[in-house]
Amino acid sequence: MKISYLSILFMLLNTFTFAQDGHDLWLYRYNPNPVKILSSHHSVILATAKQELTQGWKGNPNATVKFVLKKDKSLAADGFTINSNVITANTDKGILYGVFDLLRRQNTGETISDIKENPSYQVRILNHWDNPDGSVERGYAGNSIFWRNNDVNVTENDLKLWKEYARANASIGINAAVLNNVNASPLILTPEYLQRVKAIAAQLRPYGIKTYLSVKFSSPALLGKLKTSDPLNPEVIRWWNEKVKKIYTVIPDFGGFLVKASSEGQPGPQDFGRTHADGANMLADAVKPYGGIIMWRAFVYSPHDMDRAKQAYNEFMPLDGKFRSNVIVQVKNGPIDFQPREPFSPLFGAMKKNAVMPEFQITQEYLGHSVYLVYLSTMWEECLKADTYQAGKGSTVAKVTDGSVFKQALTAIAGVSNIGLDTNWTGHQFGQANWYAFGRLAWNNNLSSEQIADEWLKLTFYNSLSIAGKEKKQEWESKFLAPVKQMMMDSREAAVNYMTPLGLHHIMAANEHYGPGPWWGPKGVRADWTPLYYHKAGEDGVGFDRTHKGSDAVSQYHEPLAGQYNDPKTCPEELLLWFHHIPWNYQMKSGKTLWNELCLHYDKGVSQVRNFQKVWDEVEPYVDQTRFTEVQRKLRKQATNAILWKDACLLYFQKFSHMPIPYDLERPVNNLDEIIANDKYSK
Amino acid sequence: MKISYLSILFMLLNTFTFAQDGHDLWLYRYNPNPVKILSSHHSVILATAKQELTQGWKGNPNATVKFVLKKDKSLAADGFTINSNVITANTDKGILYGVFDLLRRQNTGETISDIKENPSYQVRILNHWDNPDGSVERGYAGNSIFWRNNDVNVTENDLKLWKEYARANASIGINAAVLNNVNASPLILTPEYLQRVKAIAAQLRPYGIKTYLSVKFSSPALLGKLKTSDPLNPEVIRWWNEKVKKIYTVIPDFGGFLVKASSEGQPGPQDFGRTHADGANMLADAVKPYGGIIMWRAFVYSPHDMDRAKQAYNEFMPLDGKFRSNVIVQVKNGPIDFQPREPFSPLFGAMKKNAVMPEFQITQEYLGHSVYLVYLSTMWEECLKADTYQAGKGSTVAKVTDGSVFKQALTAIAGVSNIGLDTNWTGHQFGQANWYAFGRLAWNNNLSSEQIADEWLKLTFYNSLSIAGKEKKQEWESKFLAPVKQMMMDSREAAVNYMTPLGLHHIMAANEHYGPGPWWGPKGVRADWTPLYYHKAGEDGVGFDRTHKGSDAVSQYHEPLAGQYNDPKTCPEELLLWFHHIPWNYQMKSGKTLWNELCLHYDKGVSQVRNFQKVWDEVEPYVDQTRFTEVQRKLRKQATNAILWKDACLLYFQKFSHMPIPYDLERPVNNLDEIIANDKYSK
Repeated sequence: MKISYLSILFMLLNTFTFAQDGHDLWLYRYNPNPVKILSSHHSVILATAKQELTQGWKGNPNATVKFVLKKDKSLAADGFTINSNVITANTDKGILYGVFDLLRRQNTGETISDIKENPSYQVRILNHWDNPDGSVERGYAGNSIFWRNNDVNVTENDLKLWKEYARANASIGINAAVLNNVNASPLILTPEYLQRVKAIAAQLRPYGIKTYLSVKFSSPALLGKLKTSDPLNPEVIRWWNEKVKKIYTVIPDFGGFLVKASSEGQPGPQDFGRTHADGANMLADAVKPYGGIIMWRAFVYSPHDMDRAKQAYNEFMPLDGKFRSNVIVQVKNGPIDFQPREPFSPLFGAMKKNAVMPEFQITQEYLGHSVYLVYLSTMWEECLKADTYQAGKGSTVAKVTDGSVFKQALTAIAGVSNIGLDTNWTGHQFGQANWYAFGRLAWNNNLSSEQIADEWLKLTFYNSLSIAGKEKKQEWESKFLAPVKQMMMDSREAAVNYMTPLGLHHIMAANEHYGPGPWWGPKGVRADWTPLYYHKAGEDGVGFDRTHKGSDAVSQYHEPLAGQYNDPKTCPEELLLWFHHIPWNYQMKSGKTLWNELCLHYDKGVSQVRNFQKVWDEVEPYVDQTRFTEVQRKLRKQATNAILWKDACLLYFQKFSHMPIPYDLERPVNNLDEIIANDKYSK
Repeated sequence: MKISYLSILFMLLNTFTFAQDGHDLWLYRYNPNPVKILSSHHSVILATAKQELTQGWKGNPNATVKFVLKKDKSLAADGFTINSNVITANTDKGILYGVFDLLRRQNTGETISDIKENPSYQVRILNHWDNPDGSVERGYAGNSIFWRNNDVNVTENDLKLWKEYARANASIGINAAVLNNVNASPLILTPEYLQRVKAIAAQLRPYGIKTYLSVKFSSPALLGKLKTSDPLNPEVIRWWNEKVKKIYTVIPDFGGFLVKASSEGQPGPQDFGRTHADGANMLADAVKPYGGIIMWRAFVYSPHDMDRAKQAYNEFMPLDGKFRSNVIVQVKNGPIDFQPREPFSPLFGAMKKNAVMPEFQITQEYLGHSVYLVYLSTMWEECLKADTYQAGKGSTVAKVTDGSVFKQALTAIAGVSNIGLDTNWTGHQFGQANWYAFGRLAWNNNLSSEQIADEWLKLTFYNSLSIAGKEKKQEWESKFLAPVKQMMMDSREAAVNYMTPLGLHHIMAANEHYGPGPWWGPKGVRADWTPLYYHKAGEDGVGFDRTHKGSDAVSQYHEPLAGQYNDPKTCPEELLLWFHHIPWNYQMKSGKTLWNELCLHYDKGVSQVRNFQKVWDEVEPYVDQTRFTEVQRKLRKQATNAILWKDACLLYFQKFSHMPIPYDLERPVNNLDEIIANDKYSK
């Protein structure tokens, strides 16, 4: 009778899906089997590992799993092996990652045998741009999970949420978090806030996650009432040493500081005539006794330089070798600022004596906030697999940052978080995939985006169906997994197509960075904050001349790239207008004019989003109603915004090209003057 | 040298078009040849005829044209013949129409020989819904050309504009105008206003146009301070007689009154227990001595009847034969209210003893205001050519109203004007085509919409190119005329497709009647003003059951229509939901379900508008910049609104059908709840 009861349940599952709101992320676990766990050691982290395995075991019922801690030189600190239900590691954290790896493979249906995993980076860290008032800079998923309107009291709900957060991160190998905005408030270093940091750290620690803070470089003056924050001033040095000591008293395993200095109005060592190295090293010396590190951002540019794209390189290259060994320079993937497409930053591989870490942006500042379905993994993969040639062919960004080319003592990778108080954490259900993908790539920078999408979809959307049997699973894989995965894989290029194709960049609306704004450039605003500075559209063409005859940014790249980029015939067309100012009637590889290609790209982007809508609508039977409807609604908005981008950019650029939009393309439905009138920053 | 100077001019004309703003309508005349005119008689109207011919002559230079006034029984009052440059007519107005006819043929390139023209209707009248405060009810082309914020002073500009107005009307055969709104202010009958009416009439008279006024039935009480406006009350009768006498003193050729009575809150004879005939006849007796007529609107319906579509018929049929001979009952083309598609009103042909006149709406109240490009001629042609079967097969609406089936002493046709103070008169450049088409159909109700479009396009858009030679003309005809004419011909069906396909009706937003509003039906609003009353969508299907088993409105139609309409299998699908409540999965003639057909129609409408955009963008080289850009901008708005209609209606009806929008169709980009939230009438 029990079987027939189950049959009825299966039948129900064929027509219904479980209610889901996305809060469980990729971690939803249905119906674990009983499992026995043997462990030679005991620790908080091992207890976590046991609990996770017990909650999620999908292997044979009543199987026995062994945790073995032993020295293995072939394993990194967080690495592990899995063999016949034995998880071996050097550390308890390694065991924890082994457990999550095993569970992931069970849930995705991968074969599990002779597994050996070492992470690509030692520090796999989320940067939260969260402010003490609870707001999140460039956050689109609600307020901060860490800070609440300057209220430092800790509630039960806080503890629960931080634990869930820690668990999700651990499950994908993330082992560090910067809890506050790089545009840092000095408040964060006050005793009240440090108490809250302590409470957060206590929730993160059992999941192997270290806590870091962003600091404001002028804190000694602002908080300590010193007359200066000069990094070479003894009182300043003493102030920082004491502050660091206090922090480590409260959080003994504190990770260190992230610093945005002398950038976009933030104070820094240059205010006192010192170099970035002077500033970073002073802080590095302060945290060194406790094993702390300094992540020093290279995101600097001045309003006066003729090409913002060159400045981080120009400023940091002379300092190569001048940073302490516990400093790592944090470099955004591209030389400008998290655009839909940029070439990789020329600092990667060029700085050879000091450690460099990539900074990716998980939150979709320039990619449609939490409205667009954009799977960012392909963008990051493009960067990681880009060849810098800095140590010969094959010196990819991945290899020059993970220690395999340069023997760095310290390796790290950062992702600017897209997490907030929204029930589903990331605003968009598919935003979770970007969090997931960042963790997976940080663990293994050689993974393919397709594999990561495959994993994430299975974990996130199949779990609710997972008891329904093999036939159902095959149906799900062909009807849901395949088309949705393809949609994810195409999604970033679609956004590039309808936003900034062919190397265009930084032509978005001011401040919000959501819609189009190629026209924006009011008097009095520094030029390098305006789209006009970047696209340079005129009667003679469009694009930023960064060749030898222009700003010569190409020379910051190693040959053969410098030469390739310098010549429009060899420059990849996807970066053409990044490196060149090109006449509207220039003949592209397709034989079409630049103008027509531009039109075709914008049009294709719109078609792609419309296709995503179809894909999603068709999978409705395989998704719970809440998540289905949420994504459906956002895709509608994305389609509308894609059309706005297309219309705005084509109608704006047409004022210079004086060429018709090819008549076989769908016509604009917006009028340029009305788009501009509706752009609140253009008033 | 003169020739070569002209050659240069021709070359210029090959690349440039003259600046146009549309104010010249279809009347733009370029470069007339000299002509001699001989006329046996003299009159103001003949002077007009001479002037027009002189300004516009395109025939052989120095030809002689003769105006001949003589009795010809084969010619109606406004009819004429043209033979070898001799225009013959019974009246000077006939000569004037002959002149305009000749000029039109010269400008469109038609052959001119043995022409004989008699108008289909005696009275070809525009109804202006203009209020004394200058506003225009359902007007989308600016304020009134007749009234200005209760200021009755007449300026030079007024006189100029009224003359231009009169000329345009005369050129297409319109011979009458009602100067004020059917929802009439009693002000219009005050001496101050009558002085302004006199000034207007003086400008209209030289172009053969008679002046009429709408009157408020309760004027005796409101204006005359009488205790009643009962049409059988002797004091009321005396008051009207005296008022009429005064009007004719001021305007000796005054045409008569248009009356909206006992309808939508307007006072009427039923307020005093009298019939429509009592009311109309009282006024008819008052104007009879002066040759005036009464146009009495049949647009009446009460909030309590179960089917508004039946009410005009029910109320007026018992009165057939009870109206005076100088009364004509004015009936809207359809039984509800100027919807994008309605069946013809069953009153046409049914009222056999009294004269009946069609009322068409030129202003686009339910068809996108002055935003949509909708050529209404095809809609009117559909009505005029609809067979009522009331006097056997072939008793079309045209024939049962123009006197060819029933020997009416009085024939007339009215069009609710789309004219306002906008430079281009009609808001939309293509709105002019509807004004033009109404005039042409009023003159000849057997004309095809295609011919009218052909004429209008040549007169309106070719004139500016007309000296450029034969080759240029052929190019223009293939590249501009053909595609734009096709766009016009398709335009009304496109609007039906994306607004109210398959017989849906009255599902627009409240009050403004522009966007979609199928959900609208707040408590306290009379049901027959809400879309819910008309579409009756539910789980069981959609549509208004007007069969024998429903409201039985079908029985108001003559056989074989009643039977055809009563059966969903024989009912034309374009009227299916008008006459039937149909299940969502009903199989249509295509084999598809009703739901799928509905989706396909909405989708097709959107595609059609997108195609109009392409057509228009491609003809840019053949249109002056002002008119090109105006139309282009409006088409963009139309496309956006078409998508809104499609999304709103499909997502709303889907709540009842529970069926997916076919996946090969483009998905909605709007969310229903947000559309409703943005609908100000739904708050």
